[in-house]
Amino acid sequence: MPIRLELKRIIINEIDEDQVIVLSEVGGDRSLPIVIGLFEATSIDRRVKGMASPRPLTHDLITTAISLMGGVIRDIAISDLTNHTYYAKLRIVHEMKLIEIDCRPSDAVAIAVMARVPIYVNESVFGMMGDE
Amino acid sequence: MPIRLELKRIIINEIDEDQVIVLSEVGGDRSLPIVIGLFEATSIDRRVKGMASPRPLTHDLITTAISLMGGVIRDIAISDLTNHTYYAKLRIVHEMKLIEIDCRPSDAVAIAVMARVPIYVNESVFGMMGDE
Repeated sequence: MPIRLELKRIIINEIDEDQVIVLSEVGGDRSLPIVIGLFEATSIDRRVKGMASPRPLTHDLITTAISLMGGVIRDIAISDLTNHTYYAKLRIVHEMKLIEIDCRPSDAVAIAVMARVPIYVNESVFGMMGDE
Repeated sequence: MPIRLELKRIIINEIDEDQVIVLSEVGGDRSLPIVIGLFEATSIDRRVKGMASPRPLTHDLITTAISLMGGVIRDIAISDLTNHTYYAKLRIVHEMKLIEIDCRPSDAVAIAVMARVPIYVNESVFGMMGDE
């Protein structure tokens, strides 16, 4: 059962390389803290703040390429948690077919924020959190 | 007239945020030094060294998305130099059409190294270097 999430916080820590984003359940109180790199955190933060970039950044390039090839980004999903690593999927509709691409949550969330598409998590991921 | 380039050097400097890649003319002696970010330089360096990543990195996600949508990356070109900024294009063949996407040289070169496609520069860019 997929659960809708929203990006609740981006915690940027300048001392350390690892940053944290917190995704929270819409209409619920569970949340997923995910450790990501500084580059990805900064990219997400810029998007959330609506900061324009003079040149297309890497995630702009992804969304532009998908769009010019006739694809529509449908949503992203945090699909799994194994060995302390979260897995995500970017879901694109292209020529009436659904394409699911394995990716890191940081890229998936950066794209979701840019493309303004929903973020989901599989219910089972919350169950796995206790085991990790 | 497009001129073929090859990635000659990646100069990673841990003190400063700005890194440099040097693209050199194949069969000639002109070269383009391009300042890029640390994240992009590291991404290119990993590719050149054939270092595998346990999870798909951002540039893997771009090439996978293009490929799953039926596109073929043809080449990349450094197309312009204006106000000390290099401009690049990622060229994709999709459904018999050529799609050109404006991007930063760092993303273009990272993709070229991954997808093993040629890197070109417009002859005029060498002329502009003297004016900058």
